[in-house]
Amino acid sequence: MLKGLASGFFSKPRDFSLPNSSWGPEMMRLYEQYNSQCGEETEGGENREGPWKRLPSYNRFLKYATGGVYLSRMIHKKARLFTRNNRDQGATFEYVLFFNSEEDKCVGVFQAGHLLEGPPGHVHGGAIATMIDTVIGTHATIACGPVLTANLNINYRRPIPLGNTVLLESSVDKKEGKKVFVTCKMTSSDGSKLHTDSTALFVSIKVSQLLLGS
Amino acid sequence: MLKGLASGFFSKPRDFSLPNSSWGPEMMRLYEQYNSQCGEETEGGENREGPWKRLPSYNRFLKYATGGVYLSRMIHKKARLFTRNNRDQGATFEYVLFFNSEEDKCVGVFQAGHLLEGPPGHVHGGAIATMIDTVIGTHATIACGPVLTANLNINYRRPIPLGNTVLLESSVDKKEGKKVFVTCKMTSSDGSKLHTDSTALFVSIKVSQLLLGS
Repeated sequence: MLKGLASGFFSKPRDFSLPNSSWGPEMMRLYEQYNSQCGEETEGGENREGPWKRLPSYNRFLKYATGGVYLSRMIHKKARLFTRNNRDQGATFEYVLFFNSEEDKCVGVFQAGHLLEGPPGHVHGGAIATMIDTVIGTHATIACGPVLTANLNINYRRPIPLGNTVLLESSVDKKEGKKVFVTCKMTSSDGSKLHTDSTALFVSIKVSQLLLGS
Repeated sequence: MLKGLASGFFSKPRDFSLPNSSWGPEMMRLYEQYNSQCGEETEGGENREGPWKRLPSYNRFLKYATGGVYLSRMIHKKARLFTRNNRDQGATFEYVLFFNSEEDKCVGVFQAGHLLEGPPGHVHGGAIATMIDTVIGTHATIACGPVLTANLNINYRRPIPLGNTVLLESSVDKKEGKKVFVTCKMTSSDGSKLHTDSTALFVSIKVSQLLLGS
C-alpha cells in the first residue's frame, strides 16, 4: 500500500496535452487529425510510424527537463507555467502542440476558454500573444535548446470569439549563431480565416545563467 | 435583511485596483507615490486636486461601461477579464493603472505572481505582453474610445523574476483617423533597468460591431 502510494505520488505528473472532457468537437477533430499521424506506441504495443510527434505539456519545470538545475535552485516552489495554471478544465488555455521534424513545422491546436476575455466576448490580445509565444518558443527550443524571447511582433487581423478553436502553425525562417527567427500564423480551425500573423526572434541561453542573475 | 442582501448583491463589483494583502513593499510604495497625487475625495470628504487619476479595474464588462450592449447580447455569462480571472490574491496579475491627463501619460504598477511562470523562475513572455497590452490598450481607449489591438511589437530586453514589481509607462505617439500609435516601456520599480520597450497600433471600433460578427 505504502509502495503504491509512493509510486503514485512520485509518478510522472499530468500531461495537459491529452484530451479532457472540456474539449469541443473542433478541438477533438484537429487533435485526432494530427495524433493519428504521430509515431507512437499503439494500444496493441506496436510502434506506429508517422511524421508528427505530440509534445507533452506539464505545468511546472521538471528535473529531467532542466538537468536538475531548476529543482536544486528552486526560487518559487509554488510557481506554475502561466498557460497551465488554472485547474478548471476548459476555463483558460486548452491546447496541444505537434511537431513535424521532416518539415520542421510546429502546429498548435488551441481552444480559448471563457476566462481569457479581452474585448467583450473575445480573446484578450495578451492571451493570443501567450499562445503564439508558446508555439514559437517551443519550436525555437526544439531548434536550439533553451531560448528566451527577444522580440515578438504580432499583427492582429481578426478577433477570436471565446470558445473558438484555432490553429497555429510556425516555421523557423533562419538561424544565426544564438539567434532563431520564427514566424507563426493563427487561423480558424478550417484554415479559412487569418486571425494573426507574427514574427519572433529568440536567443538561446543556459538555464543556469537565468537562475544566477536577471 | 432581504433589502440588505439585495443591495449587497447588486452593489458595484470589486475594484481590483485597490491594495490587498498580497501587495509587497515595492507595489505599495509605487501605489502610494501615484495615489497621493490623485485628484480624489479624501477621507475627510474634501476634494483633493492632483494631476493623476487612479483607474478602477473590474473583472467583467459592466453595463455602464458598454452602454448595455454587452449585457443584453451576452455570449458568455461566465466570461471574465483575462488579467483578473484568478481569485487567489497575488497569484497572477496584481496591478494598478494611473492616468495623467495633463501629460497624456499612463502608468501601470505590476507585481508578478508565481502562477505567471515562463522561463524557470521568471515571468512568461505572454504574461508580459498581456500587461503591456493592458496598459497601452487602456491608454488608447482613453484617447479614442473602444479599440482593438492591430499590432503589438515587443523587444524583451531583460527577464523579470517572479514576485518582482515593475513599472510600465505609455505615451500616445500619434493619431490618424481611426488609428492610434502608442509606445510603452517596462522598467524595474526604480526605473534603473529596462525590461521591455514596445510599440503598438490600435484601431477604434464600435463594441456593437464586435458582438454582431467576428
